[in-house]
Amino acid sequence: MIKTKKFINNPDEIVPEMIEGLLKAYPDRLRKLENGNVIAKQNMTEGKVGVVIGNGSGHEPACIEFVGNNMLDCNAYGGLFAAPGPYNIYDAILEAEQGAGVIVLISNHAGDILNSKMAIDMAEDEDINVQGVVLYDDIASAPKGEESERRGTAGTFFSYKIVGSYASMGHTLAEVAKMAEKVRDNTRTLTVASIPGTSPITGEKMFEINNDEIEIGMGVHGESAAHTMKMVGASEVAKIMSKKLIEDKPYVKGDEVIVLVNGLGQTTLMEKLIFFNAVEEVLTSEVIKIYKPAIGDFITTQEMGGIALAFCKVDEEMKKMWAKETDAPGFPRL
Amino acid sequence: MIKTKKFINNPDEIVPEMIEGLLKAYPDRLRKLENGNVIAKQNMTEGKVGVVIGNGSGHEPACIEFVGNNMLDCNAYGGLFAAPGPYNIYDAILEAEQGAGVIVLISNHAGDILNSKMAIDMAEDEDINVQGVVLYDDIASAPKGEESERRGTAGTFFSYKIVGSYASMGHTLAEVAKMAEKVRDNTRTLTVASIPGTSPITGEKMFEINNDEIEIGMGVHGESAAHTMKMVGASEVAKIMSKKLIEDKPYVKGDEVIVLVNGLGQTTLMEKLIFFNAVEEVLTSEVIKIYKPAIGDFITTQEMGGIALAFCKVDEEMKKMWAKETDAPGFPRL
Repeated sequence: MIKTKKFINNPDEIVPEMIEGLLKAYPDRLRKLENGNVIAKQNMTEGKVGVVIGNGSGHEPACIEFVGNNMLDCNAYGGLFAAPGPYNIYDAILEAEQGAGVIVLISNHAGDILNSKMAIDMAEDEDINVQGVVLYDDIASAPKGEESERRGTAGTFFSYKIVGSYASMGHTLAEVAKMAEKVRDNTRTLTVASIPGTSPITGEKMFEINNDEIEIGMGVHGESAAHTMKMVGASEVAKIMSKKLIEDKPYVKGDEVIVLVNGLGQTTLMEKLIFFNAVEEVLTSEVIKIYKPAIGDFITTQEMGGIALAFCKVDEEMKKMWAKETDAPGFPRL
Repeated sequence: MIKTKKFINNPDEIVPEMIEGLLKAYPDRLRKLENGNVIAKQNMTEGKVGVVIGNGSGHEPACIEFVGNNMLDCNAYGGLFAAPGPYNIYDAILEAEQGAGVIVLISNHAGDILNSKMAIDMAEDEDINVQGVVLYDDIASAPKGEESERRGTAGTFFSYKIVGSYASMGHTLAEVAKMAEKVRDNTRTLTVASIPGTSPITGEKMFEINNDEIEIGMGVHGESAAHTMKMVGASEVAKIMSKKLIEDKPYVKGDEVIVLVNGLGQTTLMEKLIFFNAVEEVLTSEVIKIYKPAIGDFITTQEMGGIALAFCKVDEEMKKMWAKETDAPGFPRL
């Protein structure tokens, strides 16, 4: 029985049917491991550090469509908004091990941390050289000074690409882990929500919000926001959010940042471009340059309305890694 | 005064602000003509047929993000859901003329036809070699045998890419026009709508639909549908639509088609992949092969819920043109 107006069949089968569709769409470059819920590249590259992520489903294209050259080697996927089990992440690590060790990028949520750490322990017992790096970027979820308590949100996208490209250059596991930490430490994200998404299983709204209000600071599963305010114009929202990000880091005059304007689901590209236009004005007034922004839907929360805005301060090497060509279906044409 | 929960500022300025954002996002390869509402490539290619389209705004990424190498040279954009004026299309033709003539692809809607034809007349008066090709693909809007009365909908996307690549190969205007007609004649589209989009200007819903119903056959502006039915599972919807497309053309055993699963706005990638999975089953059972499908949001109607499904029968040459690399921001990584 379908309880939503979403195009699904049996609610218990949404994830496997989505994966079947994915594999039929990209048979030349994606495959699923026979014994695990893991999407992997068709052709692994020997001798480089493997890059692995585990994450819940329902945030597509994240992360199943981020598997590709110069991005992820393997993505262990869970059920709807549920972390993948430790055995799936372990399978992904085994597959990604190509003689140079494996890095596991972990978005900071309790389930992801717990299961990724168990998987890493199991892999170490098999004498695999594996290291986990926890990613956190959402400035609304913990105050400055307690960065490591913050949630992983849309800004993790920077790490997936930059670390993926960097690993392809033949760097050691220690070097790749250091780059993952650098990208994380240079990244800040803030999210505005305007319209709730609904569960494809129950049809229920994921949170409540008044018709004339927006919430700044929401997490990727509709976790409570830091700040409710009246709906105002896009430029004002963009200005408030940009300034909060700049204050937190701080990004300073002369810096260069990649800007991510990530739609959460039903926010149109017209709105995202209008929003980006206003973000650019703030950054320009602060004498902060923008490098190849990503404007689209990358880490979604079903058909939620809203935008996650993220900045990542970059140097020349990081810029090259961000811009490197990839065949991951979910990465934009920068 | 903002009458919607969309991220805009002054409703009268949504299109110019969107364009400002676009140009800031892709300064290396897109520009706006000084004297006209036209997006053009930064670097035009001399000696090849220019490829031009005029279309209304509100359908992004169409068509502003389809400008790029091996795709469009110029896009004349209108106001929200309004055809661009003849002078804008004329400006686009002048800009695209690089010594080998210009083709104007026209999606079959009254305003687009009227204004494109006026622009073509003006360009011919200036001794420019220019040809218009009207594109129609929506099988719900007129019966078989009256194909040229059908609306232009999402299937026009095939033409933008295949004709754009073909023009880059140095073919003559007559040859390029013939290819445009071939792609059109090999294309069929059908659209299912589940949830109305809203106007970013008035905040009003674009049509009404009951909570337990979907409409098959809707146009890109919410034009009335051919068939209202109760919401059923994605596979059943996909099967009904696929069979109608196959019956109309017909596509026959042994054919190869590109499949477009085009989200209209708020339909998640999870749903699009589940839907594609079911389409693939129908085509496989009919012994029709699929070549590099496009699964994403390409021609939208604001945040409308629903999917446009299109097939284009292809030969080896068309496949090559579809797959050719492009830097148009809105084209997928096939």
